[in-house]
Amino acid sequence: MHIDILTLFPEMFSGVFDTSILKKAREKGKFTYRLVNFREYTENKHHKVDDYPYGGGAGMVLSPQPVYDAVESIQNDKETDPRIILMCPQGEQYNQRKAEELAKEEHLIFICGHYEGYDERIRKLVTDEISIGDFVLTGGELGAMVVVDSVVRLLPEVLGNKESAPQDSFSTGLLEHPHYTRPADFRGMKVPDVLLSGNHAKIEQWRREQSLKRTFERRPDLLHHVQLTEEDKNFLERLRSEKRNDKN
Amino acid sequence: MHIDILTLFPEMFSGVFDTSILKKAREKGKFTYRLVNFREYTENKHHKVDDYPYGGGAGMVLSPQPVYDAVESIQNDKETDPRIILMCPQGEQYNQRKAEELAKEEHLIFICGHYEGYDERIRKLVTDEISIGDFVLTGGELGAMVVVDSVVRLLPEVLGNKESAPQDSFSTGLLEHPHYTRPADFRGMKVPDVLLSGNHAKIEQWRREQSLKRTFERRPDLLHHVQLTEEDKNFLERLRSEKRNDKN
Repeated sequence: MHIDILTLFPEMFSGVFDTSILKKAREKGKFTYRLVNFREYTENKHHKVDDYPYGGGAGMVLSPQPVYDAVESIQNDKETDPRIILMCPQGEQYNQRKAEELAKEEHLIFICGHYEGYDERIRKLVTDEISIGDFVLTGGELGAMVVVDSVVRLLPEVLGNKESAPQDSFSTGLLEHPHYTRPADFRGMKVPDVLLSGNHAKIEQWRREQSLKRTFERRPDLLHHVQLTEEDKNFLERLRSEKRNDKN
Repeated sequence: MHIDILTLFPEMFSGVFDTSILKKAREKGKFTYRLVNFREYTENKHHKVDDYPYGGGAGMVLSPQPVYDAVESIQNDKETDPRIILMCPQGEQYNQRKAEELAKEEHLIFICGHYEGYDERIRKLVTDEISIGDFVLTGGELGAMVVVDSVVRLLPEVLGNKESAPQDSFSTGLLEHPHYTRPADFRGMKVPDVLLSGNHAKIEQWRREQSLKRTFERRPDLLHHVQLTEEDKNFLERLRSEKRNDKN
């Protein structure tokens, strides 16, 4: 996979891209990236990338010309059919399903604005608009890093066994069950007996129930999208009836 | 505001923290931060921070001891009552309201795991568990950067006029209206006439309607939480009836 990132602040990316999984993925040849400062594509002599909004108001608006020219220059270099992704608060909400979809592509181009709004015509250039959540960030750079990290770790052979397992909350659709490691007693807080029992069937059952319980308590919205067994449904029914009794 | 970040990868943060608004906020004395590699707090001679999970299974689990000791060492240094924030997929969904809440604090401590699950007893130490979204990241570092960026830009006097305006989608509760800047005609795509009219009342009305329209089309869930005027409601009713007619 190749990733191009259009940004006015390329220096923001090195710490994240040169560490950990992204670094390993690059070293293994699983992905390459290029940071493109689209200020270099401005046609005006002061290299201004933004201008005042038509109709007045505070703030500045990113001009379409440098963004269009930067994207077209990338496309002329490569014979690919890239996904062109605008990071913006108005975009579709990013989630693991979208990460899996993007992980199948061979070429992604990200456009990151910074403070400014985008000129509306920039939206005509893109294939996707993505928001990572309902909060305001200074620019699209952190969002692009989030998307790249979550996509690259899904590429084949990127994750080793050490990195893979316990985080796949959103692949089962449920929140993770609790984890414990040594010591068995830490400052009086003990590991549940079942985990020390060596009874694997019981351990699996405990973990499934804890996972259901945590999802029920913290993110009941996720339960609508999960395939539940009859045992799961019975367990959830017990949780619901306990909750009703607590209220009375 | 002071921010401590517990991480095994402190080198990830410099690019983001030394750029743009976070850099300016630091230079203005609005916030200070420290990166704490909690590996330095391990008591075992190999400085191992994780261990195998009780009950078996793939992956590793972060041990409680180094995290507890690192947090307590920070608390002994400072006479504050910090918010202690665990970045994890099981946490509450981060949003702008939470950013505003955290921006009132004087001291935040972030705990960032990396690949591993957290030993459950670490949750007893924290005041908040935060997830930035339903996707899997390699570690909590990117999430912590997202929270820090969104919080610090809310601190008094951090944003100048240039940076402030057009992004406040989530403060009005609606998605932003379209923005346009020069040229009035870019490759045949024209700026709407109303924005060139100089009629400020009409421009305001157009912007409000476009903002409602975009929210209606892309994020109807947000409309439930917004204070709407009678005009807003009439306009939305028109959109709904147009949509019904389109379907027939």
